Amino acid sequence: MFTRQELIEYTREAKKNWLNHISIDCVVFGFHEGQLKVLSLKIKDEQKWYLPGGFVLKDEHLDDAANRILKQRTGLDEIFLQQFHVFGDPQRSRPHYEMYKDLVDNQDNWFSNRFITIGYYALVDFHNTVPAPDALSEKCVWCGLDDLPMFILDHKQILDNALDALRLQLNYQPIGYNLMPHEFTMPELQKLYETILDKKLDRRNFQRKILAFDILNRSEHPRKGGAHKAPYLYSFNLEKYQQALKEGLAAGW
Amino acid sequence: MFTRQELIEYTREAKKNWLNHISIDCVVFGFHEGQLKVLSLKIKDEQKWYLPGGFVLKDEHLDDAANRILKQRTGLDEIFLQQFHVFGDPQRSRPHYEMYKDLVDNQDNWFSNRFITIGYYALVDFHNTVPAPDALSEKCVWCGLDDLPMFILDHKQILDNALDALRLQLNYQPIGYNLMPHEFTMPELQKLYETILDKKLDRRNFQRKILAFDILNRSEHPRKGGAHKAPYLYSFNLEKYQQALKEGLAAGW
Repeated sequence: MFTRQELIEYTREAKKNWLNHISIDCVVFGFHEGQLKVLSLKIKDEQKWYLPGGFVLKDEHLDDAANRILKQRTGLDEIFLQQFHVFGDPQRSRPHYEMYKDLVDNQDNWFSNRFITIGYYALVDFHNTVPAPDALSEKCVWCGLDDLPMFILDHKQILDNALDALRLQLNYQPIGYNLMPHEFTMPELQKLYETILDKKLDRRNFQRKILAFDILNRSEHPRKGGAHKAPYLYSFNLEKYQQALKEGLAAGW
Repeated sequence: MFTRQELIEYTREAKKNWLNHISIDCVVFGFHEGQLKVLSLKIKDEQKWYLPGGFVLKDEHLDDAANRILKQRTGLDEIFLQQFHVFGDPQRSRPHYEMYKDLVDNQDNWFSNRFITIGYYALVDFHNTVPAPDALSEKCVWCGLDDLPMFILDHKQILDNALDALRLQLNYQPIGYNLMPHEFTMPELQKLYETILDKKLDRRNFQRKILAFDILNRSEHPRKGGAHKAPYLYSFNLEKYQQALKEGLAAGW
């Protein structure tokens, strides 16, 4: 939480640089040890958490702002960021206003603004991510979906919505690049889908369906190791993957 | 186009009532005589057209604003409105600013604001729609997708984007309620899909796939008329249809 003087200065800079009424919140998913995780920030000296987010510079493209925010929190560049919903409840950012209303006049409180927030989600490579806290947080870490902390405002709803969007996306767009290692077995890819959908899938149906999407290359060499029958290794065909991201999966109409 | 005095008054009211930097544009699709049409407004005394749109009241939910705008332009209530994209190019609304910059000071020109616009699309019943122009337009009419007029700003891009979103949606959500009459034959529904996708579909594949979605009721009575083999009539099972809108189609993972 800001002191009075800090908030006055923050507000002065904010008004100079950013569009008012508009914010961005990012739901950043990573996949590690069979678990889906989400990048979360903990407010300094409080047991409250929030999603990576920020504001839009007066002359900045909205998508550039989202990429900038994501880069600041993860160190990652050129991530596939997907807008998924705009949260426009007039009361949604009111707790931010309430928090400071005895401290400063409304005009000195950037958060007395009503903010419509644009939700983006991203799927990132867990191992390449370098989480970094922002000015208001003491840490930025991965939280498992089964073990989430208490989020401020509507950030839990934003997260739930992103997860719904991700699950719908499985029906019409490819997924997995950035979340999987370069080469993977069919059961490993199935595990990712099962984790996102939070349900078991039939092995043969999964294989038939994912191969019909025509986005995978099969390596000529099975994985080396102890197993008596070594599994085939697959990787994404990036050209077809990118095309399917734009046009939908081949299994559509 | 406004006169100087009109713009000054419009801007004064706008600043009092609306959030700045945020607008809404609606792509309203209807289906008539085998053609997909989009509701468009023509600017008074100019050969320029735009999509139904508007701004958000300071204390209004974003989705309520979209519904209000849609109701004003179509007379329709409780329409399934889908957010599909936020357009955030910092230059996108600049032509509006340019148009008036010699007429008034920036502070008297609401359009000197940069606007991020939130795109919604809606599928409406052509026959129940009562198109109504707004204060800046001389008419509000249906335009066929094959015969579109010249749109202002990025409105053509917004329309194209909505069409892409609609086509993707065919893969994971039901479509057709509001666009079709209460009862319809399988070929009639196929024609709607073909029109949206702008391609021919195989009759048997279409029937198999749409029935697998489990959102249709088949009437016990075939259509009466001259045909020697009368076709079956279908209608949407609204309960299952609503569920599939929320959760995705049954044919998913």
